[in-house]
Amino acid sequence: MSDKKKTTIVLFSGDYDKAMAAYIIANGAAAYDHEVTIFHTFWGLNALRKDEPYNVKKGFLEKMFANMMPRGADRMSISKMNFAGMGPKMIKHVIKKHNAMTLPQLIGLAQEQEIHLVACTMTMDLLGLQQGELLENIEYAGVAAYLGEAENGNVNLFI
Amino acid sequence: MSDKKKTTIVLFSGDYDKAMAAYIIANGAAAYDHEVTIFHTFWGLNALRKDEPYNVKKGFLEKMFANMMPRGADRMSISKMNFAGMGPKMIKHVIKKHNAMTLPQLIGLAQEQEIHLVACTMTMDLLGLQQGELLENIEYAGVAAYLGEAENGNVNLFI
Amino acid sequence: MSDKKKTTIVLFSGDYDKAMAAYIIANGAAAYDHEVTIFHTFWGLNALRKDEPYNVKKGFLEKMFANMMPRGADRMSISKMNFAGMGPKMIKHVIKKHNAMTLPQLIGLAQEQEIHLVACTMTMDLLGLQQGELLENIEYAGVAAYLGEAENGNVNLFI
Repeated sequence: MSDKKKTTIVLFSGDYDKAMAAYIIANGAAAYDHEVTIFHTFWGLNALRKDEPYNVKKGFLEKMFANMMPRGADRMSISKMNFAGMGPKMIKHVIKKHNAMTLPQLIGLAQEQEIHLVACTMTMDLLGLQQGELLENIEYAGVAAYLGEAENGNVNLFI
Repeated sequence: MSDKKKTTIVLFSGDYDKAMAAYIIANGAAAYDHEVTIFHTFWGLNALRKDEPYNVKKGFLEKMFANMMPRGADRMSISKMNFAGMGPKMIKHVIKKHNAMTLPQLIGLAQEQEIHLVACTMTMDLLGLQQGELLENIEYAGVAAYLGEAENGNVNLFI
Repeated sequence: MSDKKKTTIVLFSGDYDKAMAAYIIANGAAAYDHEVTIFHTFWGLNALRKDEPYNVKKGFLEKMFANMMPRGADRMSISKMNFAGMGPKMIKHVIKKHNAMTLPQLIGLAQEQEIHLVACTMTMDLLGLQQGELLENIEYAGVAAYLGEAENGNVNLFI
């Protein structure tokens, strides 16, 4: 086991603002030399979806889920005041105005900082998501791998 | 104090999918020999309700809360895409298709694995829930007991 | 570094009930002699707003956010069963009936117990909130300060 401090985040939420919070904390921790893992499960998996459509054979229910869920970080809605999609536009506007980073930029930074971006294989299965639909260079694991990290974590959050 | 690793989860949410995530992590941690406590508070208490109606004397407001809240794990709605109840049906359908466990099954497994299922007495009081309405073999405690566990916890989550 | 146990909470949510849970845990931990920090970010900042209007020069978007968001803890809505504002009334009614504490009272107690109430400067900036709009005697900091506390925390929660 390394001597590095460790931060783990379970990203369950598919909300743009919550995912932003998760990635801001994660990038901050990585900058402070923590070893950081974000474990994406349920709706949090949408942050890892590619934004182009991906042609793949799916069952009916899996197709429904895939179509109803946002394809990628940029399309996610916010947890409060979504107002038929106006909320995310406002958030993105103020982000730009204040030279802050958008969610896709925060995810890009996380990859540069070698944060472990993990997709939960069990919920991928449930929601019918396949590896080809998700970003490159991410890891695939189950709850056991998460717990292995978290039990030695200094900061463990569920978002 | 035992040498076992310790996991504690505050289950605040009354959403089917969030409660699933809580119980999947809890059951995983118990399988890895952690001592595990799930502290059910606010809407998370609904996961512990029996599914049959329970005849009990209540004040007007307590009756309203009791009637508006789902009676038991199987009746909880999901946090995203609930679509007038269609979401939970879809989730339960894919769970069955993939031979995964439903929430009531996950709760049953947690009881077999001797996970401490605790109901927060203060919020039971607020919401007018009585012990006879909740599952057998659960524990009753307040925030002090939770903190006593969590301060020695390896993994502490709020869900 | 002191020998005190440490609890940190990221309060992201702007829901009355979730903020109650955060402040109940925080006040409990302070009573058990933990050093406690609540780091308010995104919608959680609304818990720290003064309830009188505050006249301040803002851009258009910042004004929109400011007007759409609740001014202070007492005006926040609840995460479930909000029913056009009826939910918070019910919650406040049962709180009173059971001699429990309202959210503004819990915040007052936290200040008496010297819990560190921190406002996240980065999200204040994004949402256009200014120091004059927030309660007196709170602290201002960024994610780095949060991580500095949390990496030595016994109990770290994201709410």
